[in-house]
Amino acid sequence: MGIDSRTVFETMDMLSTSDHASVVAISLFVTLLCACIVIGHLLEENRWMNESITALLIGVGTGVVILLISKGKSSHLMVFSEDLFFIYLLPPIIFNAGFQVKKKQFFRNFMTIILFGALGTLISFIIISLGAIAFFQKMDIGLAIGDYLAIGAIFAATDSVCTLQILSQDETPLLYSLVFGEGVVNDATSVVLFNAVKNFDLSHINTTVALELVGNFFYLFISSTVLGVVTGLLSAYVIKKLYFGRHSTDREVAIMMLMAYLSYMLAELFYLSGILTVFFCGIVMSHYTWHNVTENSRVTTKHTFATLSFVAEIFIFLYVGMDALDIDKWRVVSSSPKKSIYVSATLLGLTLVGRAAFVFPLSFLSNLTKKSPNEKIHFKQQITIWWAGLMRGAVSMALAYNQFTKAGHTQDRGNAIMITSTITVVLFSTVVFGLLTKPLVRFLMPSPKQLHRSISSEPVTPNSMIVPLLGEGQDSVAELFSGNGIAREDGQTVARPSSLRMLLTKPTRTVHYYWRKFDDAFMRPVFGGRGFVPYVPGSPTEQSVRQWQGEAKH
Amino acid sequence: MGIDSRTVFETMDMLSTSDHASVVAISLFVTLLCACIVIGHLLEENRWMNESITALLIGVGTGVVILLISKGKSSHLMVFSEDLFFIYLLPPIIFNAGFQVKKKQFFRNFMTIILFGALGTLISFIIISLGAIAFFQKMDIGLAIGDYLAIGAIFAATDSVCTLQILSQDETPLLYSLVFGEGVVNDATSVVLFNAVKNFDLSHINTTVALELVGNFFYLFISSTVLGVVTGLLSAYVIKKLYFGRHSTDREVAIMMLMAYLSYMLAELFYLSGILTVFFCGIVMSHYTWHNVTENSRVTTKHTFATLSFVAEIFIFLYVGMDALDIDKWRVVSSSPKKSIYVSATLLGLTLVGRAAFVFPLSFLSNLTKKSPNEKIHFKQQITIWWAGLMRGAVSMALAYNQFTKAGHTQDRGNAIMITSTITVVLFSTVVFGLLTKPLVRFLMPSPKQLHRSISSEPVTPNSMIVPLLGEGQDSVAELFSGNGIAREDGQTVARPSSLRMLLTKPTRTVHYYWRKFDDAFMRPVFGGRGFVPYVPGSPTEQSVRQWQGEAKH
Repeated sequence: MGIDSRTVFETMDMLSTSDHASVVAISLFVTLLCACIVIGHLLEENRWMNESITALLIGVGTGVVILLISKGKSSHLMVFSEDLFFIYLLPPIIFNAGFQVKKKQFFRNFMTIILFGALGTLISFIIISLGAIAFFQKMDIGLAIGDYLAIGAIFAATDSVCTLQILSQDETPLLYSLVFGEGVVNDATSVVLFNAVKNFDLSHINTTVALELVGNFFYLFISSTVLGVVTGLLSAYVIKKLYFGRHSTDREVAIMMLMAYLSYMLAELFYLSGILTVFFCGIVMSHYTWHNVTENSRVTTKHTFATLSFVAEIFIFLYVGMDALDIDKWRVVSSSPKKSIYVSATLLGLTLVGRAAFVFPLSFLSNLTKKSPNEKIHFKQQITIWWAGLMRGAVSMALAYNQFTKAGHTQDRGNAIMITSTITVVLFSTVVFGLLTKPLVRFLMPSPKQLHRSISSEPVTPNSMIVPLLGEGQDSVAELFSGNGIAREDGQTVARPSSLRMLLTKPTRTVHYYWRKFDDAFMRPVFGGRGFVPYVPGSPTEQSVRQWQGEAKH
Repeated sequence: MGIDSRTVFETMDMLSTSDHASVVAISLFVTLLCACIVIGHLLEENRWMNESITALLIGVGTGVVILLISKGKSSHLMVFSEDLFFIYLLPPIIFNAGFQVKKKQFFRNFMTIILFGALGTLISFIIISLGAIAFFQKMDIGLAIGDYLAIGAIFAATDSVCTLQILSQDETPLLYSLVFGEGVVNDATSVVLFNAVKNFDLSHINTTVALELVGNFFYLFISSTVLGVVTGLLSAYVIKKLYFGRHSTDREVAIMMLMAYLSYMLAELFYLSGILTVFFCGIVMSHYTWHNVTENSRVTTKHTFATLSFVAEIFIFLYVGMDALDIDKWRVVSSSPKKSIYVSATLLGLTLVGRAAFVFPLSFLSNLTKKSPNEKIHFKQQITIWWAGLMRGAVSMALAYNQFTKAGHTQDRGNAIMITSTITVVLFSTVVFGLLTKPLVRFLMPSPKQLHRSISSEPVTPNSMIVPLLGEGQDSVAELFSGNGIAREDGQTVARPSSLRMLLTKPTRTVHYYWRKFDDAFMRPVFGGRGFVPYVPGSPTEQSVRQWQGEAKH
């Protein structure tokens, strides 16, 4: 800190010192964001389009316009910035995902998610790396062994942002939690793999190095999770203790936003996975902190986090779209268009194969542990999981720029080919695979939307909506029993689970049962949460919106 | 655009390219922000402190700690960045002020506000400039005529952010609207004056140049206002037309935030006053757009804007506090401490005199136009207005850095003295004057808080709260009449105003009356607004919070 502080503040200063040019850039971007939102809304009912694709196309279009206006001279239009992406755009998206995720679904499938996210990514990484070596080594592009492994890590990184857009949490909750949860773990795994490839001496891989890598992954996974949980609990505790009886919506919302962001930045500070941290921070905040604040704060935080995430998502696709037009890179590869197309197509194929190579075997493995047919992942669902994780997005771009450029743009031919191929794969997979996903899900899944609607049309209690998703009636009753806790000790007709037998036969459920007991007995009394803090409709120090609404007229 | 685009995107890129250092800086800042919020909350009941002073002191304290840790070597800790301030921190504060301002109070006192903000700032500018010439010219600091005029502009800029913190809109609505409204106009005037001083050839001031300056001010004022109003109306129209029957809270909130920010950036793009633009955009949005969105969007926008503004305010004071410790500047002036203290004290005195020189005469002028004694600005109120506008803040800092530094820090002795004196004046006025304001307001004003509370304890309708503030019973009835519009045509006992007589005797009221007619007949049917859009409790596509709250448990 003592040594660094000079650089730190100079960087901070540099970050913010600019001139009229940044005003132009920001105005242009904000205008385009507004356009994307409005056009996206108009196209909402369209069965092919989604907001990501709209933003991507508007971005490419704007890139073309700027290129034409500057008469092709403005070759170095815009370079994808890793930091803008990792520091400002990604945190709100992942935090919101954790904040809004259906926690029960997520934790029920926890083992499958870890299996897919960690082991699956590793399989995908190996296949893509080996494939790249096999196909590209004879092509004289000038890549080293480290580059091939980096390619594996880059193209093993799925785009969890795009997944959020194409799968609906309400319509296909199991698939959503699997694919998105996998995406979050996948992000962490890819970054670990990528850093491992960059830092480790790969010329002589032996057991020690491999074990070190595995250890590194577990360290990263566990410490990131713990950091996220601790920060989330801290925010709950602070708000519960300090604001008791003297709530202020602005302060509560500010504390929640700042602590969430802080968790991400602290993870980055300690070289952990910020994505995992902020995801678990979101889960903890929605379980504890969110229940400690006023009604107004709840509405505000829920929608603010969703809005920030929404805007950041659109921004990313707009940005990737505009970046695709950097003609410097294209000029270098234009001398060998066939080679470039061949590389892109190969990478796309490897991505398809690499994902298939783990989704189907691991689903089979996962199904072996489940007894109820309702809990198993059926073949159609497996296809959807395979397909929905094919999109490559901003994480791949960020890693590719990190590996293949130094100062933002490169003249080296091999590097230029890899950058343009990455852009091609990202654009193609997002647009083409993305366009096909909505129809594919509708074709493969037995009209889940209508099913959901018919349930919703009945008078819905939260439980009645969850029951059909649980699959097993018996367990959902046990859930209710433990969920309603202490007050329902009379429910002796429901067989209380015998701990050891349960743990052996249904480990996840048993863990869940004991977690609930622990949560009710210790966590919630300390950190607050539903039913453990008095209901606060609004603060005495702030006017209610309705009152303000009245005054606003005058 | 064609020529600029290269620079634009390179700047954008540079803005976001950084390394681990920026992660450290952001983590530190976010942690400090959290600390300020929590400590500010704990000190809330304290009769002296407010959040600005807390943040300022924490900032100075952190600066000292960093200085100690780096053993005094980290001399160039942090330099105040104009752009961080003007592009990211100021817009949310001013927008929120416009969004939450009591519109009736503001427009009722519109002429007085303009008088104070424009003519008053000019008087203050002249007195401070002349005083600076008189006191500093013999001191051999090495300032040119342009520097003296710049000093006038710098110290004529009041701190509207600090005003928001010390005066309460609910307790002293007249004073709040006067002082804060004046602050907004003052910002525009100061920036115009400052730019005029920088750009015009001041060696031979004649009538043409003076007229050009006046014309420039009116152009700036009118075009900025129009831009803000147009952007606000556009947002209202877009949301009313597009989202009819298919509301999405996230999109609505995103559109409102982005369009508000866009209005500011467009104003900056065209070299207008972004502050004025975004202020009027906020007023228009709260009058039209806010009524076109769902209930959830209303709660969310109201609190989100307030929270962003709150965080930005704390950030500014934290930042100013940390910046004060840049020992490079202090080292230059440490050779002549007496001179530095003399300059700071003189500037502080000139600020006091310059403000007194317009508050009392202009209040007298304003009182001449009012007939009812309740509408006049009494002497005690004049003292409060004088005192509450004495704080100098981030705008003064930004202008001073613009004038007296080139690359962020200066070795020139005259410039160093001016920078350190500005910091001294800002710190002293914010802390000392700020600390004294709360007690002063309580001492001078006849316990407005209790008065307000006693009104609130009765069953409150919005109108009954406004009536005592209007001062004239008759007019408030006329207001109610025109406010409730078409439906109340039977209220013939209330004398309908005869347009010409009214316009001559009570110009503001008459303008207001015709504005309401115009608003009801044309504006609201087109742009929406209270009572002109069907009430939408929530969107069909989104779950209500209550439902989500239920599900969150599972």
